Amino acid sequence: MFDKVLIANRGEIALRVLRACRELGIQTVAVHSTADADAMHVRLADESVCIGPPPARDSYLNIPAIVAACEITGAEAVHPGYGFLSENARFADILTEHGIKFIGPSAEHIRIMGDKITAKLTAQELGIPVVPGSEGGVNDIDEAKRVARDIGYPVIIKATAGGGGRGMKVARSEADLEIAMSTAQSEAKAAFGNGDVYIEKYLEKPRHIEIQVLGDGKGRAVHLGERDCSLQRRHQKIWEEAHSPALNAHQRDEIGSRVARAMEKLGYEGVGTIEFLYENGEFYFIEMNTRLQVEHPVTEAITGLDLVQEQLRVASGADLAYTQSDISFSGHAIECRINAENPTTFAPSPGRVDAVHFPGGLGVRVDSALYAGYRIPPYYDSLIGKLIVSGKSRTECMMRLKRALSEFVVEGIETTIPLFQQLLAEPDIIDGHYDIHWLEHYLARQA
Amino acid sequence: MFDKVLIANRGEIALRVLRACRELGIQTVAVHSTADADAMHVRLADESVCIGPPPARDSYLNIPAIVAACEITGAEAVHPGYGFLSENARFADILTEHGIKFIGPSAEHIRIMGDKITAKLTAQELGIPVVPGSEGGVNDIDEAKRVARDIGYPVIIKATAGGGGRGMKVARSEADLEIAMSTAQSEAKAAFGNGDVYIEKYLEKPRHIEIQVLGDGKGRAVHLGERDCSLQRRHQKIWEEAHSPALNAHQRDEIGSRVARAMEKLGYEGVGTIEFLYENGEFYFIEMNTRLQVEHPVTEAITGLDLVQEQLRVASGADLAYTQSDISFSGHAIECRINAENPTTFAPSPGRVDAVHFPGGLGVRVDSALYAGYRIPPYYDSLIGKLIVSGKSRTECMMRLKRALSEFVVEGIETTIPLFQQLLAEPDIIDGHYDIHWLEHYLARQA
Repeated sequence: MFDKVLIANRGEIALRVLRACRELGIQTVAVHSTADADAMHVRLADESVCIGPPPARDSYLNIPAIVAACEITGAEAVHPGYGFLSENARFADILTEHGIKFIGPSAEHIRIMGDKITAKLTAQELGIPVVPGSEGGVNDIDEAKRVARDIGYPVIIKATAGGGGRGMKVARSEADLEIAMSTAQSEAKAAFGNGDVYIEKYLEKPRHIEIQVLGDGKGRAVHLGERDCSLQRRHQKIWEEAHSPALNAHQRDEIGSRVARAMEKLGYEGVGTIEFLYENGEFYFIEMNTRLQVEHPVTEAITGLDLVQEQLRVASGADLAYTQSDISFSGHAIECRINAENPTTFAPSPGRVDAVHFPGGLGVRVDSALYAGYRIPPYYDSLIGKLIVSGKSRTECMMRLKRALSEFVVEGIETTIPLFQQLLAEPDIIDGHYDIHWLEHYLARQA
Repeated sequence: MFDKVLIANRGEIALRVLRACRELGIQTVAVHSTADADAMHVRLADESVCIGPPPARDSYLNIPAIVAACEITGAEAVHPGYGFLSENARFADILTEHGIKFIGPSAEHIRIMGDKITAKLTAQELGIPVVPGSEGGVNDIDEAKRVARDIGYPVIIKATAGGGGRGMKVARSEADLEIAMSTAQSEAKAAFGNGDVYIEKYLEKPRHIEIQVLGDGKGRAVHLGERDCSLQRRHQKIWEEAHSPALNAHQRDEIGSRVARAMEKLGYEGVGTIEFLYENGEFYFIEMNTRLQVEHPVTEAITGLDLVQEQLRVASGADLAYTQSDISFSGHAIECRINAENPTTFAPSPGRVDAVHFPGGLGVRVDSALYAGYRIPPYYDSLIGKLIVSGKSRTECMMRLKRALSEFVVEGIETTIPLFQQLLAEPDIIDGHYDIHWLEHYLARQA
């Protein structure tokens, strides 16, 4: 195991990584911007190095400064957290060149999954289900009909050169197809000077369901179940749960095993998440995150595993300690992302935290780097804490979440706590009936 | 289920009960002394009633004031927590007379178990192992030899009229017995004017191991495994863990089943704890606590059950929701009792808490009613919080405990946190090799 690890991040995730290191007896090096000199991760680390001023490009994204911090402190490895440099293949390469271990997958795997097109092709080759569609452009209505019949309606016709919704038309039946196609073609031609279109399966009300995987880079990998992250505002998840209210154990095992086998074929190292849209019992690959995710604690709650410790173990060269049959799931867990934002307008609310009191008791976990007197700087992501509840059932989690939110005190700034309190009263949320559009529609109704 | 419950307690346990009520949708009534008007349990309860000044006998032990508080607020049931009135059969009787449900066993069961002699006799009748000994006085050396041979050496000879260690002699073999017996008899005669003695099995270095039970008062009961609470200072537990480092699964099942069957025979209602001394594979009944215990969270951690919610359910008349085969154990848990005391002299340290920061993250639970600015009154027990860690293994718990203690900040008063940090460096603690005398010997060596 490593003796000393540098944590190239800030906020709650820097603290999360620090805790895992400490529990494994690893010395920690914090890095920080001049705006973060008083941050909790700096206070708790064994050593800390200032790597520049805000904004992030001058400090947390400053690769030479981070490499220098490793060299000064003798850190053998870097944990990138999430965001910042966590999916930067060049950073992984540079660390490797300096003899420093990047805690994560190979730069090659980061590159493959970082590009939408190679990611989809690779997923498909590895047996991961992707959104079905025409292989390339479709310009002839007869070919379009054959493709659409193959895929099944509804389908969406998209401009090959397109983007921003222009040149996109949904056809719900063969009767719709001809007009949808010619409209899409004309729009595409008008907008992009190119009338080429292609066809994909159209998902009406999909859920966002993702599979957590862990591999050792030596051909062994397991899946750790799924998370349902359908509740999103502007593509930002705000509520994540495991298991998904929409899946049964058989579906979980099936998609999970498929993904784990794919990661074995790839020789993937570390933790990763394969994100899917899910509708009518089918999964459609969106992308793979080759790093730890914000919502990993819900998986920890139902598996009993410490994902950051597992990352550290495989990064240090250890074989995967588990086969799939060693992984068992127990109970349910829900995470709410608490942001320093106005709960209605979502305007950021940085500033001094006058008082803070976290909920406690059975089944309640808080991951947060807040403390009383801390001044939240305006330069970074507004996430200030994660509240994770676990219990025997989803119902128990919902009651526990309500209770925990009622105890959560943050004074001096605005937070999104009231939003979650409102959501807990919504029948769709209580019943687990939500898709990726639910929250936007809900917020539009409230506005 | 009840609509409204009064919590006849204060501090962390009042908060613990309040949380369980809130998760079940039950309205809560806090009671408090004039010294506790600002306490957390008062702040969080739906209603609160002042029941008198400190000390406790004028408020938390004031039965008429508590009954009046129930009548004023319309509370249907009273949760007594631990300590105070939790094992007061008269209180249970008076509540019953007023048509208020006492959340706990029948007054009769409280009485039986509250008296050392009837408790031991009842335990024996119910098939719970007790310390073997002579049926009554033994005055003849030949009878003493027969009894001692039956029990097995070492034995202890005790004055029937005795106490305080006088007239007590240990015999480690038959060769010792004659002189031990005559010395005990003379000492007893000199001290108490009565030379009668009796013989019991002598335990050299026992552990304190207790079994948690849950019954529905209708003949159904389950055991929830054991807790090892051997680390005690002046008979006060400071560290509790589940499972015991000394037991294997077979031993746990055997003693647990025996105790659960006994509780079924008794028709016991609610949670209860049967405390044993344990040595060389044998259990010896000490006493039964007919209430929730301070250390119940370690059992919650390994079973996933909320013991206070279970209490509320059976008290409301529900049948036990579990058979023994529904109860499964997972992982390990350790609780440290954090007291407002000097960690070396154990002198109480009440006063204003200037700052407080609880540890968080995976596998860490804090039960505490502290908050920044709170003034700890000098009238009550010095327990200010419980830190409970859980993990896959005892080793993981020990590392997690060390990490969590390093994050625990309480400023303005002294706490016993440094004592636990010292203990974590002791090989005996790391290895789980400790008995009920270990801590006293350790503290004597440090002094």
